Amino acid sequence: MAKNITARSSDYSKWYTDVVIQAKLADYSPVKGSMVIRPNGYAIWEMIQQNLDRMFKDTGHVNAYFPLLIPESFMTKEAEHVEGFAPECAVVTHGGGQPLEENLYIRPTSETIIWSMYKKWIMSYRDLPILINQWANVMRWEMRTRLFLRTSEFLWQEGHTAHATAEEAEAETLRMLNVYKTFAEEYLAMPVIAGRKSESEKFAGAVHTYSIEAMMQDKKALQAGTSHNLGQNFAKAFDVQFQDKDGQRRYVYATSWGVSTRLIGALIMTHSDDNGLVLPPRLAQRPVVIVPIYRKEEEKTRVLAYADALHKELSARHKVIFDDREQYKPGYKFAEWELQGIPLRIEIGPRDVENNKVVLVRRDTMQKEFIDRSAIAAKVDETLPLMQREMLEKARVWQKENTFNVDDYDSLKSIIAGDGGFINAHWCGSADCEATVKEATKATIRNIPFDREEEKGACVVCGKPSDGRVIFAKAY
Amino acid sequence: MAKNITARSSDYSKWYTDVVIQAKLADYSPVKGSMVIRPNGYAIWEMIQQNLDRMFKDTGHVNAYFPLLIPESFMTKEAEHVEGFAPECAVVTHGGGQPLEENLYIRPTSETIIWSMYKKWIMSYRDLPILINQWANVMRWEMRTRLFLRTSEFLWQEGHTAHATAEEAEAETLRMLNVYKTFAEEYLAMPVIAGRKSESEKFAGAVHTYSIEAMMQDKKALQAGTSHNLGQNFAKAFDVQFQDKDGQRRYVYATSWGVSTRLIGALIMTHSDDNGLVLPPRLAQRPVVIVPIYRKEEEKTRVLAYADALHKELSARHKVIFDDREQYKPGYKFAEWELQGIPLRIEIGPRDVENNKVVLVRRDTMQKEFIDRSAIAAKVDETLPLMQREMLEKARVWQKENTFNVDDYDSLKSIIAGDGGFINAHWCGSADCEATVKEATKATIRNIPFDREEEKGACVVCGKPSDGRVIFAKAY
Repeated sequence: MAKNITARSSDYSKWYTDVVIQAKLADYSPVKGSMVIRPNGYAIWEMIQQNLDRMFKDTGHVNAYFPLLIPESFMTKEAEHVEGFAPECAVVTHGGGQPLEENLYIRPTSETIIWSMYKKWIMSYRDLPILINQWANVMRWEMRTRLFLRTSEFLWQEGHTAHATAEEAEAETLRMLNVYKTFAEEYLAMPVIAGRKSESEKFAGAVHTYSIEAMMQDKKALQAGTSHNLGQNFAKAFDVQFQDKDGQRRYVYATSWGVSTRLIGALIMTHSDDNGLVLPPRLAQRPVVIVPIYRKEEEKTRVLAYADALHKELSARHKVIFDDREQYKPGYKFAEWELQGIPLRIEIGPRDVENNKVVLVRRDTMQKEFIDRSAIAAKVDETLPLMQREMLEKARVWQKENTFNVDDYDSLKSIIAGDGGFINAHWCGSADCEATVKEATKATIRNIPFDREEEKGACVVCGKPSDGRVIFAKAY
Repeated sequence: MAKNITARSSDYSKWYTDVVIQAKLADYSPVKGSMVIRPNGYAIWEMIQQNLDRMFKDTGHVNAYFPLLIPESFMTKEAEHVEGFAPECAVVTHGGGQPLEENLYIRPTSETIIWSMYKKWIMSYRDLPILINQWANVMRWEMRTRLFLRTSEFLWQEGHTAHATAEEAEAETLRMLNVYKTFAEEYLAMPVIAGRKSESEKFAGAVHTYSIEAMMQDKKALQAGTSHNLGQNFAKAFDVQFQDKDGQRRYVYATSWGVSTRLIGALIMTHSDDNGLVLPPRLAQRPVVIVPIYRKEEEKTRVLAYADALHKELSARHKVIFDDREQYKPGYKFAEWELQGIPLRIEIGPRDVENNKVVLVRRDTMQKEFIDRSAIAAKVDETLPLMQREMLEKARVWQKENTFNVDDYDSLKSIIAGDGGFINAHWCGSADCEATVKEATKATIRNIPFDREEEKGACVVCGKPSDGRVIFAKAY
């Protein structure tokens, strides 16, 4: 266990905060509810951005930027939306030394401001679809900060698309949820369950909401991304119609979808351990560190020359940290790079130089291996993707082992009250039964999985007929 | 001249707005003072970001993210800073449905919030330097919007560094100004003059400010980037001291530097013409467009097959638009891609197919050239960097031809009142003489160029001794 990091087994919540603070991923700010994302944390966000942005562009999307401030009158145009968001907004009442004529809300999400622009831009079916994404900061007032997971201000992307038909909008909603699922699994090495949210849990203003849900190491769920089919709700609120091919004027169909810096919290809670952060290789800006080890001056020359040559060789293919700092001892360096989650560490001491070897240490397993100098480049090339796959596999096993098919309400309650996990249980579809479970256990319906089996059953609460199981779990 | 674009010669200011709106770079938003950056404009910002970000990282900087909202009490800690910025801030007074205990300002710039964190992070000389950059939105209240040039909210990057010595801070200030100069010239193809700002024009809270200044096509200056040596002002305001190698506690030295979405305005006003946007190739996400031309069905098959093969060949090296849309005629397509500034257009008609040729059109010169099919890939490879160089050269000539050495005040006044330009004139260094010129002509001292000649002279206003010439010009 690393210095200054509480063990997961003794206090999971404190462990999480310790990892974030000690690995210098983020820090508390003097502004209540806000956090500072430090360079180590922001580097992870950059990797998330780069890869997701490429996936968005590959699916035909472009980026744009809309104003931070939203007039109060816009917020109130879509009834459910204002009810859901207005109470948690920060409000600007003064600008340029003067009180404003109309209050401005810092965007909690941008549907309203964007649809006011789409009204200007959409005339005809030729203007559709619009496939726009925005990378931005948003704000939803919070007093109890949890770094990355719950802060007033956070960074995210929000896609906002406009379509001529309901079918196209639905296809887009599902396409983007699938992009999130692929990204979560292939980059974050985090297995997720894709499905539809219940009516009570959907986005304020949506026809329906889809989500991906991941299981953290404390067996709680974390909603890692959502995709909303907004139907014609925003088009009607902002009167956005288009002339269709047949000359008819019709309301436009909308979707929106987003993921946020919360993903960094999810990443930490999926893989990290009592020594600190564990980064999947594809999320590490610099996936390899070389640490030379020596005591005497004549050792130093030989070790550094050997390490330097290896550094040059590996740098052709990977971003490599060469930690030749003189003021720190090897043990200190090992602990530091473990804390920061660097996937592979290469140690080189005088005996390794003699034997033409290096020591390779994998961050996830902490496994140590002696590798021939001539084989190390190939070994690194092979280990990074292997580690990526094995991290996903390990998380899959964890999720599977802690997911339980439950057919009676007492078992559901006792599992949630006990060790926790995902409960697969039948549900009749009523908001009342959902609320009953939530009140009794704090567990909510995470989603109705797309790939659930067709299975008739009885609602675990009321016994009425059900068409299949849904996932109940406590969530972040 | 393109439809809907006013000629530069008839109304330069209206021409600028027309280009921005018609090329769909930006749009007015319903929030006073704010703009929407549309996908075509944001694509330029992405190119600016990607390239600058790489240059920042190559010079050892990392990115981070600090809160949007700054407590009122922070703003007031540095006396000049609050005086300069507080009057133009947007103020949040309510959050989560409650009035706040302390008002929060939307950041106009982040020195105060960042230095409050540096106080937490800096203990010893080992923690220095800190070389952090932030990509963010900021807000300075404006009622009279000019798209990209003057809006309340804009996007920018702000570097904030902390150093142990005054020398290091000064070196960093100059290094980053030089990064800006290189970027402006090599990417934006926009020649700039680097120099020091006068005391009256420096940043609120800086010891001194350096800038790069560019000449627009209307001969006005545009400040395209600034780099500030903040001395120990912010360290003292936020009490940030470090223990030096000799055991002494010392205040930290600071720099900050930034460029913004204003650069997009500068880019437009440097190169564009009465047909719309002209993009330097290195700023174009997709620098080549292929437009097939045909009338009859049998022409269509041959032309599309020929064009498609070329598209595949060129796509191996460049991002190429293949405009095979059926609903638009070639003339419409030419005008559209000219308006959007795509650097190279390749036209392919039935006769070109017969002759094994294509037509290549350069956006900056509108020069048309017939190229052998077998030579086109090499020609594109060669023309893109050539165009980049020639655009810079053309802008250099423009700047040179409109820069005048002036030795008497009347000539200065008559040039500024007449055709305008950059005036190289002697100045005694007094704020009074600077203010006199500003009041009489609206021209300001843009900067004191680093590369000015050593030349004794007499102040153009008061006749007192001067050590060299400075640049007077009207500015955006």
